[in-house]
Amino acid sequence: MGKIKVAIIGLGLMGGSIAKAMKKNGGYYVIGYDTDKEISALAKKSESVDEIWDGETALSSDITILAVNPRVALSLLETLPPLLKTQSILTDICGIKSEIVSKAEDVCKEVYFVGGHPMAGRELSGFKYSDAELFFGRSYIITKTPKTNPSAIEKLKQMAMDIGCADVTVTTPEYHDKMIAYTSQLPHVLAGAYMNSPTSASHKGYSAGSYHDVSRVASVDEGLWTQLFSQNKKNLLFELDILIKNLEDYRSALSDNDTDRLNNIIKTGRILKERDISLNGSEKPHKFG
Amino acid sequence: MGKIKVAIIGLGLMGGSIAKAMKKNGGYYVIGYDTDKEISALAKKSESVDEIWDGETALSSDITILAVNPRVALSLLETLPPLLKTQSILTDICGIKSEIVSKAEDVCKEVYFVGGHPMAGRELSGFKYSDAELFFGRSYIITKTPKTNPSAIEKLKQMAMDIGCADVTVTTPEYHDKMIAYTSQLPHVLAGAYMNSPTSASHKGYSAGSYHDVSRVASVDEGLWTQLFSQNKKNLLFELDILIKNLEDYRSALSDNDTDRLNNIIKTGRILKERDISLNGSEKPHKFG
Repeated sequence: MGKIKVAIIGLGLMGGSIAKAMKKNGGYYVIGYDTDKEISALAKKSESVDEIWDGETALSSDITILAVNPRVALSLLETLPPLLKTQSILTDICGIKSEIVSKAEDVCKEVYFVGGHPMAGRELSGFKYSDAELFFGRSYIITKTPKTNPSAIEKLKQMAMDIGCADVTVTTPEYHDKMIAYTSQLPHVLAGAYMNSPTSASHKGYSAGSYHDVSRVASVDEGLWTQLFSQNKKNLLFELDILIKNLEDYRSALSDNDTDRLNNIIKTGRILKERDISLNGSEKPHKFG
Repeated sequence: MGKIKVAIIGLGLMGGSIAKAMKKNGGYYVIGYDTDKEISALAKKSESVDEIWDGETALSSDITILAVNPRVALSLLETLPPLLKTQSILTDICGIKSEIVSKAEDVCKEVYFVGGHPMAGRELSGFKYSDAELFFGRSYIITKTPKTNPSAIEKLKQMAMDIGCADVTVTTPEYHDKMIAYTSQLPHVLAGAYMNSPTSASHKGYSAGSYHDVSRVASVDEGLWTQLFSQNKKNLLFELDILIKNLEDYRSALSDNDTDRLNNIIKTGRILKERDISLNGSEKPHKFG
């Protein structure tokens, strides 16, 4: 069986990691593209990709991956589909799905669009931090709507496993966005909010794992995350309101010296976490993220 | 040179880990005590301690460590000092220092009290989770007041290094409590507040490192943490108010569709975290915590 031909548009942390994981897997012929010519050259030289696309001519890829931020992905959806092979698969890796899937389904007439979101990342960006093992042990979320081609979903599932993911979740764009507001966006908001205390600059010698865990993802690309948060406004506001209310509960119990209530609030969190651990295990996914 | 004789009162996660680390170091003769006789017997049998104290007779230890929660430590300060050797050192490991140091300095007439707080822990408690490597690479905070014996501080510093700590911070009880409200207590509040969303039960398949990092320390002993929070009310309220205000800033920028402001808020967090990484490194302390 021949290799699957994949085009990866954008060779940053994510695109670069997908390329490297596919080359490591061996079953893929990888065409890469980046607006930064030096990055493209570096990707080719390091054999992370087999070929560099010129950005203009028709693509013969079986699967084309938009490994760019949501705004660029939305813009590429205007121009790219006519360059793709009929009945090939077009997918993206954006952290937010409703808007992009909706637009893609409007514009993709001859190709099958399937939204995707590998649950992996690092607090560092760019090709130089890309890693063939970035997806190892992670979840890959694939979106499905009444318009999604079932066979294209199956092919994308296989691709997710081939780059190292441990499981694939198929869901609607709307449910994805609701869940991601809680599992990923809220922790990113928290990390930034946490760092912005006058006490943070002096933590050295007084901090341990908790400090590092809460603050880790504060160092994100504000351009990208402004897009991600803005495209998921309703869901993120829902989670933010719950969190602020919960923090105010701690605050008032503490302020009122109501130790019974404080005890109950802490206990509620413990029980929820213990239930989670008993159902899903306590292990953090592998290496990055 | 003979071994340093240490008595450890309380053989839970912390006391058990100190005992094991001292036995591993080899320079200590360890006397252990726990109100749970089975735990005492297990500690002796596993050679984590050399000897079990009966809880009543005079102690000949050079250093005595209260490895119990703040309430029990405050209570032991009423009864224990008369049983200790004159000019020996009494210390504790409580996560909050002002109240306990103040009381200890009132009652300790013949022994030198020095407050201590090893910055290590796990989200699991009890002797069975104790580990000789719990303190490896961590900070140990020692409190100093006008009444603290300088030579006792030096001896405690050496003890901290002997059990594996990488550095020792000497500070006032008040500054300790202010810093710990931010570096440790606030992340614990956050973890509990974060778990208490209706979305948390369904995270599986949609979560990655961020979810695990923020929620990890939710599974704490509510009895202990109610004490720790309550004894540090003023400092914790100060940090909670800043955090709630910061979250409300995110909320209003998002709600107002003010992407410039949202971008700036995220950028502020990123710059603070990057400055922190450039000053202090990005590594999370070893293994536990």
